[in-house]
Amino acid sequence: MKLGRLNHIGVATPSIADSIAHYREALGATTISEPFDMAEQGVKVCFVDTPGENGTNGTQIELIEPLDANSPIHGFLAKNPLGGQHHLCFEVADIAEARAWFEGLGKRILGPTRIGAHGTPIFFLHPKDMMGQLTEIMESPRDDSHLPN
Amino acid sequence: MKLGRLNHIGVATPSIADSIAHYREALGATTISEPFDMAEQGVKVCFVDTPGENGTNGTQIELIEPLDANSPIHGFLAKNPLGGQHHLCFEVADIAEARAWFEGLGKRILGPTRIGAHGTPIFFLHPKDMMGQLTEIMESPRDDSHLPN
Repeated sequence: MKLGRLNHIGVATPSIADSIAHYREALGATTISEPFDMAEQGVKVCFVDTPGENGTNGTQIELIEPLDANSPIHGFLAKNPLGGQHHLCFEVADIAEARAWFEGLGKRILGPTRIGAHGTPIFFLHPKDMMGQLTEIMESPRDDSHLPN
Repeated sequence: MKLGRLNHIGVATPSIADSIAHYREALGATTISEPFDMAEQGVKVCFVDTPGENGTNGTQIELIEPLDANSPIHGFLAKNPLGGQHHLCFEVADIAEARAWFEGLGKRILGPTRIGAHGTPIFFLHPKDMMGQLTEIMESPRDDSHLPN
């Protein structure tokens, strides 16, 4: 297992619209995706792009708003009403290999591997097994992902 | 104001040694700086490098351990005993300009501008004015920073 790119950090917010305004107006973000619902996960999300070195893409900020009171983000916001950092997400080349790696280490994996917000397979690791950090592992998007299968 | 590179995310930990082992052994980090004390801030810190796109440097993870019970990290760990995400840090080209920008927006700045862990000027913004996120603003390191003044 080799540490991959920090694809994004997930930030919970009570209002994705307010967070977008904050990132755009106070922090000067220029590229922010349209918010979209991930109904099965009970969240609305969007991505704020940050610049990497030498014109590359940097780590994104994933803004996450609960869709309803059953959302897993709802409890987080009950404790942190203003919102705040919720998880971090590292890329891996092969999601099945990564899953086997963390299982082998005895790390608790939260549910099955599923398709994440970037359209590639992901899973989450329990924060209690990850030094307090809810950690998402995501298969890197492939450059040919826009092509038909 | 233009959004700069996400230089690092700060992660509090009760044990920098345990966190280094976690990042190295579970997550596969290979480049981790030697921990050093920032006595005035009451913390011990080190940086875990993550890869960016195309061989560039990615966003770092700053591990932060309190030096004693007076450390500002001490209270965070009292609430989050395992540790967790503590702040995020964006780069700017000019720290004085950035400070004036945030002051103009009425954002509370926590103390004077000072030299941060990367040797460049930094300041922190109050999380209550930043959608719940303790936000560090850091002047980008210059390529000639190793040269004598």
